[in-house]
Amino acid sequence: MPTRAETEGSALSHGVCLDRLAAVAVTFGLGLATGQELVITAPIEALPLVRRITEHAYKAGAALVTTLFSDDVATLSRFRFAPDQSFDRAAHWLYEGMAAAIRNGAARMRIVGEDPGLLREQDPLKIARANRAQASAYRPALELIASFATNWTVVPYATPAWARVVFPNESDEQAQAKLWDTIFATCRIREVDPIAAWKAHAARLKRRASLLSDKRYAALRFRGPGTDLKVGLADDHEWQASTASTKNGLECNGNIPTEEVFTAPHKDRVDGFVRSTRPLAYQGTLIEDISIRFADGRVVEADARTGAHVLQKVLDTDEGARRLGEVALVPASSPISRSGLLFYSTLFDENAASHLALGQSYSKCFRGGAALSQADLVNRGANRSNIHIDWMIGSSQVDVDGVTVDGQVESLMRAGEWDS
Amino acid sequence: MPTRAETEGSALSHGVCLDRLAAVAVTFGLGLATGQELVITAPIEALPLVRRITEHAYKAGAALVTTLFSDDVATLSRFRFAPDQSFDRAAHWLYEGMAAAIRNGAARMRIVGEDPGLLREQDPLKIARANRAQASAYRPALELIASFATNWTVVPYATPAWARVVFPNESDEQAQAKLWDTIFATCRIREVDPIAAWKAHAARLKRRASLLSDKRYAALRFRGPGTDLKVGLADDHEWQASTASTKNGLECNGNIPTEEVFTAPHKDRVDGFVRSTRPLAYQGTLIEDISIRFADGRVVEADARTGAHVLQKVLDTDEGARRLGEVALVPASSPISRSGLLFYSTLFDENAASHLALGQSYSKCFRGGAALSQADLVNRGANRSNIHIDWMIGSSQVDVDGVTVDGQVESLMRAGEWDS
Repeated sequence: MPTRAETEGSALSHGVCLDRLAAVAVTFGLGLATGQELVITAPIEALPLVRRITEHAYKAGAALVTTLFSDDVATLSRFRFAPDQSFDRAAHWLYEGMAAAIRNGAARMRIVGEDPGLLREQDPLKIARANRAQASAYRPALELIASFATNWTVVPYATPAWARVVFPNESDEQAQAKLWDTIFATCRIREVDPIAAWKAHAARLKRRASLLSDKRYAALRFRGPGTDLKVGLADDHEWQASTASTKNGLECNGNIPTEEVFTAPHKDRVDGFVRSTRPLAYQGTLIEDISIRFADGRVVEADARTGAHVLQKVLDTDEGARRLGEVALVPASSPISRSGLLFYSTLFDENAASHLALGQSYSKCFRGGAALSQADLVNRGANRSNIHIDWMIGSSQVDVDGVTVDGQVESLMRAGEWDS
Repeated sequence: MPTRAETEGSALSHGVCLDRLAAVAVTFGLGLATGQELVITAPIEALPLVRRITEHAYKAGAALVTTLFSDDVATLSRFRFAPDQSFDRAAHWLYEGMAAAIRNGAARMRIVGEDPGLLREQDPLKIARANRAQASAYRPALELIASFATNWTVVPYATPAWARVVFPNESDEQAQAKLWDTIFATCRIREVDPIAAWKAHAARLKRRASLLSDKRYAALRFRGPGTDLKVGLADDHEWQASTASTKNGLECNGNIPTEEVFTAPHKDRVDGFVRSTRPLAYQGTLIEDISIRFADGRVVEADARTGAHVLQKVLDTDEGARRLGEVALVPASSPISRSGLLFYSTLFDENAASHLALGQSYSKCFRGGAALSQADLVNRGANRSNIHIDWMIGSSQVDVDGVTVDGQVESLMRAGEWDS
C-alpha cells in the first residue's frame, strides 16, 4: 500500500475517489482512443461508477458508451423459479453482439462486484450447466479479449453484497466503507496523481517481466508445505505484466489493481504436487486446501478440504480444464496480500500471491503470439479451454526457482519475496 | 376509470400493485409461452418492476430473461460530452442481437418511463442525427415487432423524472405517487382481478374492431375546429385492437394501457387539413397546435404554434415520414382522457384521443398481412418509414364519419363519443 507520505490521506471524499477510479479505468486501464465505442458490463449497483466512467469516456472521445447491467436478484430468480431447460441456455445473441462490437473496434470494460455467495444454496449441477452454456456463448468474445484484439480492462465496485462477504462481522454500511477503503488504497486512488502512480508501477512490472523473458527458463519450481511442483514453460513463452499492446494498436492494462507477472506453462510439462495457499472462491463455494497432483501437464489427482465436489466439476468442464493456462508470480508483500483479506474475487485474490490458472492460455504469453494460429499456439504448449480459473499457490513459506534449459537452478523468490 | 364498486379501492400496497402490474405485463401483455426467452428494455429506475416481471416470467416458464437497462444520465452525458461523430453512431451490434433473439423466438417487453424533457436543452440537430442512427440500427428488430413475428408488450414505470414533468407543481415524492396512482387506475391494477378485467376490455375492443372491419369503409372523415380531413383507408385494411395473433402462434397485447382501435390509412389517399387537439411531446420538445394539410396522402403544409422546427425535422426524416401509417379511434371519455393529464408519453397520450401516426404502417392492419411481402403491402397502400409518431386529433369537439365505397356517409363518433 502506498506510504502516508506519497498520498493525500483519507481526506478525499468518496465522490472524488470514485471519480479518480473512473479516470484511472478509462485512461490507464483502457487507454481509450478517440472515436472508439465502449462496451461496459457491470452489476446494477455500480451505476454511480458507470456514470462517471461514461462521462470520462465521452470526454476522452468515445463515440458511444453502452452498458449492459447484470442484476444478482434476477440471476437468483432464475435459479429459484426457471424451468429446468433454462440452465442449458445463454443469451447467445447478446454475447455474439459483444463479439461483433469488439471486432468492429469497441473497447471493453468489466466492472466486478457481484455477490460471491449469491448461488451458495443453489443446485451445483444447475450452476455448472448454466456456466457451461454461458462460457460457450461468451467464447467468441472471450477469444477476442484473450488475444487482445482490442483494449480492455477490469475494475472493481464495492457492492453491499460483496462487502458483506469480505467483512461478515461488520454492519452493511461499515462493511461497504471498509471495502471501498481497501479498494481505493490498493488501486492507488489516494496518491497525489493516481494515473502517474499506475504508470510507474506498470513500468516496474514490465521491467520484471522483461528480465524473466530474457532468462528463457525451461521451467519454474515451486517448493513449500505440501508443494513440490515443476511447471514447464511453453516454448517461445513471454512473460507479461499489466500493460498489453493490442491488435488495434493501443495499450491497455487489463486489471486494476494488478501486481503480477505471468506467462504460459507448457500444457504437457507440469509435474509434481501442489497445495493451494488461499481459498478459491468459486460461484459461491469456498474451495479450501486444494491438493493437486500433475503428471505430464494433466491433473491426475485432485482433492480439497472443502468444496471438493465443485473442484471436480470445474475439472470436468472440458479436457483443457485439467491443464494449466497460466503461471504468475506475485510477492507475498503485495498490498493486497498485506491487507490480510480474502476478497472472494479473482481480481484481488490473484494479486495477493503467486498462482496458477486452470484452463485457457493467453496468446500474448507467446513471442509473436498475436500472429500465431491456434495450431501454432497449441504446438508451442498453449492450452485451450472454456475456463480460466486462478488459484493461489504462493505464500511467505513458498520458494520459487527458475530452471534453465541446461538444468541449472536459479533462485527467483525466497519466502515469497523476489530475490532481487 | 373503474367505478368504486368494481375495485378494491386504494387499500392495496404499492408493492402489491407493482406485482400485479408485473403479472398483467407477463400474462396479459406478453402471453409468454413456456420455454420462451424474454428480452426487456427498461429505464434503470424501473428495476423494482423489472425484478417482479423477471420472477413472473420465470414462474411462467421463461427459459431466460435478459434486461437491457438504459440510463438517462448516460444519454445526457453523451449529448454534453461526446465528440460530434458520436451522433451518427448507434449500437448496431446490440439491436442486431435483439433482432436475432426475436427471430429465434424471444418475446419482447419494453418498459417506458424515460424523462420526456431529458434533451430539452440539447442541440436539435444532434438529437435528430442520433435518432436517425438509432432508428436505422433498430429497424430490423422493429420490423419483426411491427409484423408481430413474436409476442411483445409495452408497460409503464413511473420514474421520478417522468413524474416531475407530468406533475410539475408537486414535490418529487408527491408527483411520483400521483403518477403511480394514475398508472394503477388506468392499467386496471386495483380491480379485483386485473387480468380478467383486461381480458374483458380487450374483448370489447376486439368486437369494435371487427364491426369496423366488416364495414369496409373507403375512408374516414374527421370534422372539428381546424379540421376537415378525409383519411382514405388502405385496400384490404383490417381494424385492429389490443390483442394480436403473432407469427409464432401466440396472442399478445402490445400496450398497457390501451383504449384504441386502429387501422392503416392509404398512403396516397389522405386529403384536407387537420389540427392537433393535444400537444405532442417529442424528444423533450412540446409540439403544440399542429396544423397540417395533406394532398394525395402527403403532408404539403405543416406548422405548429410551438416546436415547429422539430416537426419539420420529423417530416424530413425520410419520404415515409410525410405520410400516414395509422389512424386510430379513441372515445374522448377514455379513462386516460378523463384524467385530464398530458403524460408526455405516447403509451398514455395516444389512448386519450383519436389520432394519426406519421410513418410506418403495421402489416397486421391488412387482411392476411402476415403473409404479404413488403411490395404487396405497399401496393395496398401501406407506408414505410423509420418513424412512427402518433399525434392526437380527437376531442369532444370532433365528429368522425365512415365513408363507404359508394360514397355513403355513416356517423361513427359524435362529440368524440361512439355513436353506438
